[in-house]
Amino acid sequence: MGGMSGASGDGSALARGRPGEGRRPDGATRGLDALFRPRSIAIIGASTDPRKLGGRPLANMLRGGFTGRLYPVNPGAREVQGLPAFASLEAIPEPVDQAVIAVPAAAAPDALEACIRKGVRVAVMFSSGFGELGAEGRAVQQRMAARCRESGMRLLGPNCLGVMNPADGVFCTFSGSLTGNRAWPRAGGIGIATQSGAVGTYCYTLLADRGAGISHYVATGNEADVDVAACIAWLAEDEATRVILTYLEGCRDGPRLREALAACAARGKPVVAMKVGVSEAGAAATISHTGTLAGSDAGYQAAFDEAGVWRARSLEEAADVAVACTAGALPRGRRLGVITVSGGAGALLADEAAARGLEMPEIPEEAQKAILALVPFASPRNPVDATAQTGNDRTLLTRMMAIMMGEPDGPARFDVFIAFLAFVAENADAFATVLPALEALRRQRPETAFILSMRGSPEQRRMLLEKGLFLCEDPTEALRTAAALVHFGTRPPMAPAPAVPATARAPLPDGPLDEAAARRLLAAAGVPFVAERVARSAAEAAEAATALGFPVALKVLSPDLAHKSDVGGVRLGLRDAREVAAAYDAMLREVRAAAPRARIEGALVSPMVQGGVETVLGVHRDPVFGPVVMFGLGGVFVEVFRDVAFRLAPLSREEALAQIDSIRGRALLEGARGRPPVDKGAIADALVALSRFALAHAEEVASVEVNPFIALPGGGLGVDAVILRDG
Amino acid sequence: MGGMSGASGDGSALARGRPGEGRRPDGATRGLDALFRPRSIAIIGASTDPRKLGGRPLANMLRGGFTGRLYPVNPGAREVQGLPAFASLEAIPEPVDQAVIAVPAAAAPDALEACIRKGVRVAVMFSSGFGELGAEGRAVQQRMAARCRESGMRLLGPNCLGVMNPADGVFCTFSGSLTGNRAWPRAGGIGIATQSGAVGTYCYTLLADRGAGISHYVATGNEADVDVAACIAWLAEDEATRVILTYLEGCRDGPRLREALAACAARGKPVVAMKVGVSEAGAAATISHTGTLAGSDAGYQAAFDEAGVWRARSLEEAADVAVACTAGALPRGRRLGVITVSGGAGALLADEAAARGLEMPEIPEEAQKAILALVPFASPRNPVDATAQTGNDRTLLTRMMAIMMGEPDGPARFDVFIAFLAFVAENADAFATVLPALEALRRQRPETAFILSMRGSPEQRRMLLEKGLFLCEDPTEALRTAAALVHFGTRPPMAPAPAVPATARAPLPDGPLDEAAARRLLAAAGVPFVAERVARSAAEAAEAATALGFPVALKVLSPDLAHKSDVGGVRLGLRDAREVAAAYDAMLREVRAAAPRARIEGALVSPMVQGGVETVLGVHRDPVFGPVVMFGLGGVFVEVFRDVAFRLAPLSREEALAQIDSIRGRALLEGARGRPPVDKGAIADALVALSRFALAHAEEVASVEVNPFIALPGGGLGVDAVILRDG
Repeated sequence: MGGMSGASGDGSALARGRPGEGRRPDGATRGLDALFRPRSIAIIGASTDPRKLGGRPLANMLRGGFTGRLYPVNPGAREVQGLPAFASLEAIPEPVDQAVIAVPAAAAPDALEACIRKGVRVAVMFSSGFGELGAEGRAVQQRMAARCRESGMRLLGPNCLGVMNPADGVFCTFSGSLTGNRAWPRAGGIGIATQSGAVGTYCYTLLADRGAGISHYVATGNEADVDVAACIAWLAEDEATRVILTYLEGCRDGPRLREALAACAARGKPVVAMKVGVSEAGAAATISHTGTLAGSDAGYQAAFDEAGVWRARSLEEAADVAVACTAGALPRGRRLGVITVSGGAGALLADEAAARGLEMPEIPEEAQKAILALVPFASPRNPVDATAQTGNDRTLLTRMMAIMMGEPDGPARFDVFIAFLAFVAENADAFATVLPALEALRRQRPETAFILSMRGSPEQRRMLLEKGLFLCEDPTEALRTAAALVHFGTRPPMAPAPAVPATARAPLPDGPLDEAAARRLLAAAGVPFVAERVARSAAEAAEAATALGFPVALKVLSPDLAHKSDVGGVRLGLRDAREVAAAYDAMLREVRAAAPRARIEGALVSPMVQGGVETVLGVHRDPVFGPVVMFGLGGVFVEVFRDVAFRLAPLSREEALAQIDSIRGRALLEGARGRPPVDKGAIADALVALSRFALAHAEEVASVEVNPFIALPGGGLGVDAVILRDG
Repeated sequence: MGGMSGASGDGSALARGRPGEGRRPDGATRGLDALFRPRSIAIIGASTDPRKLGGRPLANMLRGGFTGRLYPVNPGAREVQGLPAFASLEAIPEPVDQAVIAVPAAAAPDALEACIRKGVRVAVMFSSGFGELGAEGRAVQQRMAARCRESGMRLLGPNCLGVMNPADGVFCTFSGSLTGNRAWPRAGGIGIATQSGAVGTYCYTLLADRGAGISHYVATGNEADVDVAACIAWLAEDEATRVILTYLEGCRDGPRLREALAACAARGKPVVAMKVGVSEAGAAATISHTGTLAGSDAGYQAAFDEAGVWRARSLEEAADVAVACTAGALPRGRRLGVITVSGGAGALLADEAAARGLEMPEIPEEAQKAILALVPFASPRNPVDATAQTGNDRTLLTRMMAIMMGEPDGPARFDVFIAFLAFVAENADAFATVLPALEALRRQRPETAFILSMRGSPEQRRMLLEKGLFLCEDPTEALRTAAALVHFGTRPPMAPAPAVPATARAPLPDGPLDEAAARRLLAAAGVPFVAERVARSAAEAAEAATALGFPVALKVLSPDLAHKSDVGGVRLGLRDAREVAAAYDAMLREVRAAAPRARIEGALVSPMVQGGVETVLGVHRDPVFGPVVMFGLGGVFVEVFRDVAFRLAPLSREEALAQIDSIRGRALLEGARGRPPVDKGAIADALVALSRFALAHAEEVASVEVNPFIALPGGGLGVDAVILRDG
């Protein structure tokens, strides 16, 4: 992996010049080269006991072979773990890129000041007892962050597990994972950016089980300065990093995370994310943990969706997907080929492929005949069941694979290929037969992703991964991984976020916004609404209805009544002028009786919309990401089935269309139950308009809802609208 | 595990008398003692080469130490793998319990006859080339099955991977898994009954990774005689088997599977199932594999649901759940306690607990204070984050656990407890500190299920499992396993299937069944319908409407029109006699114009049902399980969201209520969106009536649908009904 990634210590780091120089010096990644690729490291609080928190980073780097210069700082020792010790940071005769602060919380601010005086580029603060403990700790943390901003020094932490870069031998961490026997991080192509140190180290051990190593590991802890978004942005540019695995609890700066994910998408670098804090209990756990605001999940999901992030449900899923991404090219289509030594596993994989939307094209008849000529009992289509008959002659298996793949110089038949080989790798003879053939096929089809599902040792996994073959023991999980690869390989390029026109930035009118005002504002912003007229009397209502065309609906007009139907304030399907006039009077009588204190200004008259599908368009302001645009089907589908999709504002038309297509009930928009398909473009235009409106009034508007918005075969019409002002 | 299960070779088998004797001699399990616990085994086609298919069973049993007598049959050898060989089965001087038939397909029928002549109790036929190959092979297979029925000998296979019982040293299999280095099946408490041999052996290796062993392994192959249901039924009664793991592609005898699962439920024995063939491609793969009819998934899901089977989505999930079930008592409630060395893992577990419906009660304030007294930075509620501060003194961790658990003689606070300990087991000192405390807590709380999530070697997992501590590396999967344990521990006892009254078994009337006839039949069976009258003229319609009460609906009555609204044959919301008469004439004109060849017999007049929730009740005949009862919400919810639940007929009222509660949209029945909750009991009664009707007319009726059935606050009313006759 190290060889594949091109990250080989000194060379590449030096070639780029001194850390901290070049590359967006004013952006979020400013100075982070010194975090990820330091050439000199001081350890403040370095302990002579390698088991102690302050002794571990030094012990780790001595073991891991740090390629730069190490300066233990310990006023009470002349030597620490065999290296000459310095009484203070100032006593170090040379410049220091990175300083590890491994002292108790009370002494940490002074250590930070010493770092600033010394001109250290980045401080890594292990010390805990700040923002995670409450107001007092938070205040100290904020003062330290302010000092960093003033001085230009960057700060990782406090309360963080540090940073690792195995290729350069950087192990500035006190993680218990390094003291065990099994785990030592190897160099590889996966960058880990995590808010939880322990979860992040757990991940690298899961990667190691799968034969893969890491380019960098960074745990951001309390994020007084450097946050996980900045780390992702840095990794997006890092040559050694081919995939990013991130664990998130929440972030304070949504737009920065959005930008970092966009940078990864722009470079075609897959991002695999675990985001916790979805449930109330989970969010509470993260708040007490690092004091991060978890925010609502909708904003994160929207940010992930727009950038094509794969959201993993478990750490093992995240590890499988990240490792498989490093095994070769990403598939450019959804065609899956499967061969198994067990019909059962084939059926299992076929089920899972159907569930995850992968296609399993049959192989050509000629190829099927050729397979049957080898083993008459085989199932020759796709999945191919080679059967247990191949147990005595494993070349039958590899010959079948070659037949499945087709002519070497012909077009590829599959974008992903999964071989379930059960125990082949546990039998030395069998493996020796199969492996060279697998390697040859892999070389012959560089555009096809290969996944093996079989028993295998960590050593075998590593060897196979280096040959571009990902091993995943469980066939269901192998298929899940294949689906993730297809997701990354087939996602459309991320649409650039559209600019928000300055013209829309007019202030909202003062006072409460009734329905008519809300409709007027949104219509002006580009959301189409059903025609309507205000009537102040029965006669005006009848006249308006005649002009609009029958049948019509009447709704009471009042700034005080949010739920009109509850007080008898809605009349539907009125068929002529006489009915309208009678209904107007009856309705106002009923409403006055039910809500005697409400101001009643008349009624809205509008034509009944025939047919179409009821949808809901909305925007709410997310504390982390700003306006988040919602789309769903009407009422019950949103409230009970939670069948909604979110995107961040501003929203491109392409993203809006993807948003519409991502709901489970999309068939209803496409002509289910014999109805004509509706105009998704019209919905998309309305969502884009809504997103612009919300962004233009971001400071004033808490939420907007157009409910229902009737999607029609040739357009779409909002019927009702509510704008909630901030506060 | 062997010690825990009580399966210790000779003793227990002998204590029960000769295999095949006792215990339901005429049931599906007749003679299966000789399959699972043979005392003498002959191998027909025994090879001197232990690597060959015919040599492997003998080699396996010599290695595994079979405790009974072994008779290799090979006419061309005097000795096979060190044992005296017999020229024929007849030449064996003693009775033979089990004969392995390891000869090519062409020679297999003769070998079977020899077994019958010898009085063998069960034959295990490895040979392939029968039912899975097409009509010719199927005919041979059927003849062999018939010979077994006549003679009383049982047959496993053909085309099967055989049977294992590690406690007794039975390894009648040619599985490649036994020739590898890593895997050798150990004795334990998990019984594997599989239709795919290779998937089944893969499972035992996954169990071994988790420290667990198997009581029995049986692969049923083509199931000419012994099927997987019979094996499950036998394992249900087997003392050594504490959990059953089954892999199913399909079965021919649904009621037998249902009975076997009921036997497991009655004995409180958890069943974990992988069922494939769900998708079309998956089903096609299973058919070409063993020639099994996969059947529709609805019937299987219904059978699993009624018996409380845990349906696993992956083999690793199945293995986790099965192993965890053997670690101790099943939890009797949903209360989860979590401690972690990482706040991140705590948040992850809290999210997953919320998603899976487990509760995480806060621990008492006193206990929280005691935890903070140990580590001031800890999060003391639940999940408890012990923090990395415990890294230097692991007793802090175990003391916190003890505090969480409460007074040893007080009531248990948790039904399941998960500890995420990351790398503790990889550090010898840390593990030596933590392990005794974990053991003590486990002993102190036998009623609480303990799951550890940390890195651990297979040896550590095995050691921990023997102490009642299940180790699952991935925290998400640990939680999934906890949810499965809670499922098994809290499921209500399986309701006995009600008897079907003979009175219902009247034949259906001849000829096509129009809506009125369908309603009449179903109403007589106990499904309530909205009142209705047949009108043959406009005057009769007006009269009927006046008698029923306004508003009413009119529907054209015709045996030829299935979709009445498509031809203008429905009128709704008619408010007085005049409107009804006018609508009758207009409707019949429109229908005659749209469908000039349809026989029109008049119209049905019924009152409009006000309010309520539209549901659909249905029954269809499943080829494997017979009538399957469906429940869902109206139209779109069933067709687009597939929010339906299935149960097998006959159906108890308790099961019907569970069925209703299992749909995703159940909130709509319970008063979502401000509506009053509906009467679920009335729906349940209608489902039970429908299930009885379908069973009473099982030969004549292909499907029944009551659509819509309006569920109301005080009852429920069917509006429309269709009965489809067979063929």
